[in-house]
Amino acid sequence: MLKHKAVETPPDFDTRFRQNFADLLRWRRDVRHFLTDPIDEHIFQKVMALTNYAPSVGNSQPWRFVRVNDPARRERVIDNFKQVNSAALSDYKGDRAALYAKLKLAGLQEAPVHLAVFSDEGTEQGHKLGRKTMPEMLRYSVVTAVHTLWLAARAYDLGVGWVSILDPEEISAILDVPEEWRLVAYLCIGYPAKKEMTPELELKGWEHRHPENCEVLLR
Amino acid sequence: MLKHKAVETPPDFDTRFRQNFADLLRWRRDVRHFLTDPIDEHIFQKVMALTNYAPSVGNSQPWRFVRVNDPARRERVIDNFKQVNSAALSDYKGDRAALYAKLKLAGLQEAPVHLAVFSDEGTEQGHKLGRKTMPEMLRYSVVTAVHTLWLAARAYDLGVGWVSILDPEEISAILDVPEEWRLVAYLCIGYPAKKEMTPELELKGWEHRHPENCEVLLR
Repeated sequence: MLKHKAVETPPDFDTRFRQNFADLLRWRRDVRHFLTDPIDEHIFQKVMALTNYAPSVGNSQPWRFVRVNDPARRERVIDNFKQVNSAALSDYKGDRAALYAKLKLAGLQEAPVHLAVFSDEGTEQGHKLGRKTMPEMLRYSVVTAVHTLWLAARAYDLGVGWVSILDPEEISAILDVPEEWRLVAYLCIGYPAKKEMTPELELKGWEHRHPENCEVLLR
Repeated sequence: MLKHKAVETPPDFDTRFRQNFADLLRWRRDVRHFLTDPIDEHIFQKVMALTNYAPSVGNSQPWRFVRVNDPARRERVIDNFKQVNSAALSDYKGDRAALYAKLKLAGLQEAPVHLAVFSDEGTEQGHKLGRKTMPEMLRYSVVTAVHTLWLAARAYDLGVGWVSILDPEEISAILDVPEEWRLVAYLCIGYPAKKEMTPELELKGWEHRHPENCEVLLR
């Protein structure tokens, strides 16, 4: 699938790779400020090929991708974002509402690529292995694909923003996808307009990261 | 948090890093065959620190980790796996049932580390941003943490297996976690006994990977 000189024996990852990989994790951002420049289609294909190496329950590969090019459909998606965002704003009061109103929560207008990612809840692939008591594993597999795409895009200097301020059923209707497909993520993809190591929500004072959230309880 | 010489200016990822990263994605496996050797605790801490760089909705970092050391609790988890696995087997008929019965679906007996990963559904962190119409974003954030852990572990030669053939509520009870925590993943971690580039489910004829699953529909 992926046309690069692939290692066919188990790779030995060295210190330099591990440091670069840590930098990839630290510099991956949820991007909301995009340049409008089109992306390199060859790079996009590479990123998609890497995405297909994501793990999936029972090898089900339930991820389905829809690239939204039609200006009318993009406009309807943006309208849906505005509606949901405005309803969300009304849930906050006082300073928190003022802060929310100032946040830029999506790059839907500027990002050259809109990519909707669905879970095919009707797939037979994987023969339902691993899903008896945890049917959500199908959607979780799609999330690992989204995260793979995100990291791969960043490795190729592309930025990704995950927009969840949308009504999933509305988006499915706008994009006219099969009935068994369930929206997992709506992604904006393009070249970032800013390069920040600190998440925008932290810079703007919405929420800080808490290192203690990686502590491990013992049982 | 992570004590390595971190890049404080945007990293330029080179061809070598991109090829190594592609190899990391291609060689990550869902491991079910572990050596019983203990893992290096220093490496485990490094992997957990990297995990905390996962993306999360509204910067909520809802991931919670429980390491299961108590032999009695581990035994109850293994019993739960056996029950669910046997119920799952009875859903298959004929050749498919015979094939299922031959699969090794978890390394719970051998893996030195059992790590349960929960979503804290009661967290106030993130102030509910991005969750109004997609409340599942909290669990999806935990999935990106699991995937980050998985890749980071592989970069340090550790193997991870995600076991979903378990009853999430039973596991929560066995591990005596707060009521608002919801099980997202139960992980086996240790040094892999085999190094295979092809997923075990593919080797054993359960399910093949389909490259066409990364095609992108246009709308």
